[in-house]
Amino acid sequence: MTAVHCAADRSVPDPEVGLDADPADAGPLAGLLVIDLTRVLAGPFATMIMADLGARVIKVENPSGGDDSRRYGPFAADGRSMYFARVNRGKQSLAVDLKKDAEQVAALAERADVLVENFRPGVMDRLGLGPAALRARNPRLVYASVSGYGATGPRSGEPAYDAVIQARSGLMSVTGEPDGPPVKSGASVSDLSAGVYTFGAVMAALVGRGIHGRGTHIDIAMFDATVSFLEGNALAWLADRTVPHRIGPHHPNIAPFGAFAAADGQIVVCVGNDALFVAFAAALGAPRLAEDPLFAQNAARSANRLVLTAVIEELLAADTCVNWLARLEAAKVPCAPVNDIGQAMTDEQTEARRMRITAGGLELPGQVVKMAGYPDPAVRPAAPGLDEHGDAIRAEFGL
Amino acid sequence: MTAVHCAADRSVPDPEVGLDADPADAGPLAGLLVIDLTRVLAGPFATMIMADLGARVIKVENPSGGDDSRRYGPFAADGRSMYFARVNRGKQSLAVDLKKDAEQVAALAERADVLVENFRPGVMDRLGLGPAALRARNPRLVYASVSGYGATGPRSGEPAYDAVIQARSGLMSVTGEPDGPPVKSGASVSDLSAGVYTFGAVMAALVGRGIHGRGTHIDIAMFDATVSFLEGNALAWLADRTVPHRIGPHHPNIAPFGAFAAADGQIVVCVGNDALFVAFAAALGAPRLAEDPLFAQNAARSANRLVLTAVIEELLAADTCVNWLARLEAAKVPCAPVNDIGQAMTDEQTEARRMRITAGGLELPGQVVKMAGYPDPAVRPAAPGLDEHGDAIRAEFGL
Repeated sequence: MTAVHCAADRSVPDPEVGLDADPADAGPLAGLLVIDLTRVLAGPFATMIMADLGARVIKVENPSGGDDSRRYGPFAADGRSMYFARVNRGKQSLAVDLKKDAEQVAALAERADVLVENFRPGVMDRLGLGPAALRARNPRLVYASVSGYGATGPRSGEPAYDAVIQARSGLMSVTGEPDGPPVKSGASVSDLSAGVYTFGAVMAALVGRGIHGRGTHIDIAMFDATVSFLEGNALAWLADRTVPHRIGPHHPNIAPFGAFAAADGQIVVCVGNDALFVAFAAALGAPRLAEDPLFAQNAARSANRLVLTAVIEELLAADTCVNWLARLEAAKVPCAPVNDIGQAMTDEQTEARRMRITAGGLELPGQVVKMAGYPDPAVRPAAPGLDEHGDAIRAEFGL
Repeated sequence: MTAVHCAADRSVPDPEVGLDADPADAGPLAGLLVIDLTRVLAGPFATMIMADLGARVIKVENPSGGDDSRRYGPFAADGRSMYFARVNRGKQSLAVDLKKDAEQVAALAERADVLVENFRPGVMDRLGLGPAALRARNPRLVYASVSGYGATGPRSGEPAYDAVIQARSGLMSVTGEPDGPPVKSGASVSDLSAGVYTFGAVMAALVGRGIHGRGTHIDIAMFDATVSFLEGNALAWLADRTVPHRIGPHHPNIAPFGAFAAADGQIVVCVGNDALFVAFAAALGAPRLAEDPLFAQNAARSANRLVLTAVIEELLAADTCVNWLARLEAAKVPCAPVNDIGQAMTDEQTEARRMRITAGGLELPGQVVKMAGYPDPAVRPAAPGLDEHGDAIRAEFGL
């Protein structure tokens, strides 16, 4: 076994959150220095998670207005962009004109553990800040690029937004009602999946640096991330070239498994196996459904989905969502209301899990990564003003 | 700075992919030992990424049939489950009856870097394999739990599937046509986002172990992961208690930004700013649209979205998707076809990025995490047969 180096041993410790501090007060990434050249969503989401977990994240912004998303809605009552506040909380801001002062970024990267950027492929190279240039000066640097289509391949240079990627990846084609048009997922799945993959890839590269002693260049594409999320739909095509179509709120191979109308709205019911269907039929007050050869086994239920749905919805029409959910919960049938966003954000589980917190006085979604022995505060630091930490950082690094 | 330990220094090197091997042949996680007690989707997706990146993953399965997903479709021509093959490629299988032989897992965990499980909260504790018990025997263990609602909060014990979480989290309520019912995202967003978060969290905890010298217990909830993906919809509600509704394939604050019907299908067009709208209008052959006060600026276009969409679709009706996309690409307007799954899987970018590979002779989606200096093979190892590596592992660890 060769000597191995440690994940953070070239980092610049923050005097406030240093390695000698009580770990209970510091995140798992305390001491890690991240240079953040990302804008808008996918990249900033990745570095937000790092900042939430205790890394020091220096966000480099153009001096003429900074990150475009500072001007994106929705806005808080005091005019601040919620969009910017959410994905940049806890970061430090340094204004740099990359056309004139790229060397400032190179100097920071020389002392950093991680650099993340989401410019169009080629832009960083033209600025003299590409992975080859910066890794030559700091071989232990983990340099991560996030882009729509990745740094390679014929579409590498094409412009991409979340909706473009949801369309080209096939995701839109399988989202929507069977007889309706394709729709986008209500979430920015392509941006955010790429963001979380970038977070994980950077962490994996730091673990790899501890094992192999060197950094790397990570190349994450929103397109790849979304293709990986197709899962069952992709597998259906790969298995026998079946092109899956939209099936609305249902499951391709399991029934009943999806959304059903009750008297005053919709509920989701997931009957994953035949034993559960017996319990479900009893809770509906129609236990003999489970003995009907049309419905007794999942393969038959799946083949007779339309008939089954009609039968279920006829029964559900007799009562309200709340009452049916109470009966189904008692019968241990997995189920849920189709919550609107307000109901979801005020669900008792959202509160209990600290998935609603405040940062800089604004209410924002919390941090998903919960780890014992590390903090998960209900009050987090604000997103920075443009160049808010510029003077201190320029002095500290001699820029 | 206190002495720090290294991410992998207690790992059990695999003789084939050891730390002395050429790093170009080994993944960044070579030498890392992961004990995998996950089943079905969210957990196996996380440990699949670790296996793809070179970790040794020992999948512990019940001797009576193993992971349920071995019997989930779609199936390959030779009868193998594509579902199981996809998320378990490159892992080793060990059959253990957890009710009788839990101590075998505890013994493995004593020598492992990572343990991942996705039983219902409480199950591992009842088996004597909870985080407190195993971390007492191996304080450097990173123990990760993935569940529907997490290990805490009032819903912790409730059963959950992807569809249940998409409903309760609010995601379904914002997915679909404005005047249609809520639909599920075509991707298992709740399962897969939780899977990628788990991968990232485990890697972050290993980095944290390098800094702080100790493991942790990670607690990832599909519910939290999905709430974090609501992003703009959650922010709209948090800003001023506006409940966002479904807007089909469009963007809440930017227009034109979404799917539009052409003569023979739909295309996605993303006009992110006013300058791009000038180029878009010219490509449509209607340059004066950009001078119309109804459409000149984004705020006006967004307010007049329905009129704008009608105008655009009247123009697009004159030609085919392919022809419009060629014109829009030439004008550098971000755009894409609404590909079906077959078109997406055979897109030239999918091939160029190795997002279609083979593993054990089956065609499967590739690995998203691309890293310079580490392999990204087009042929990966198969998913294991049940207990395929049992005898070798029992001998190696003295079980």
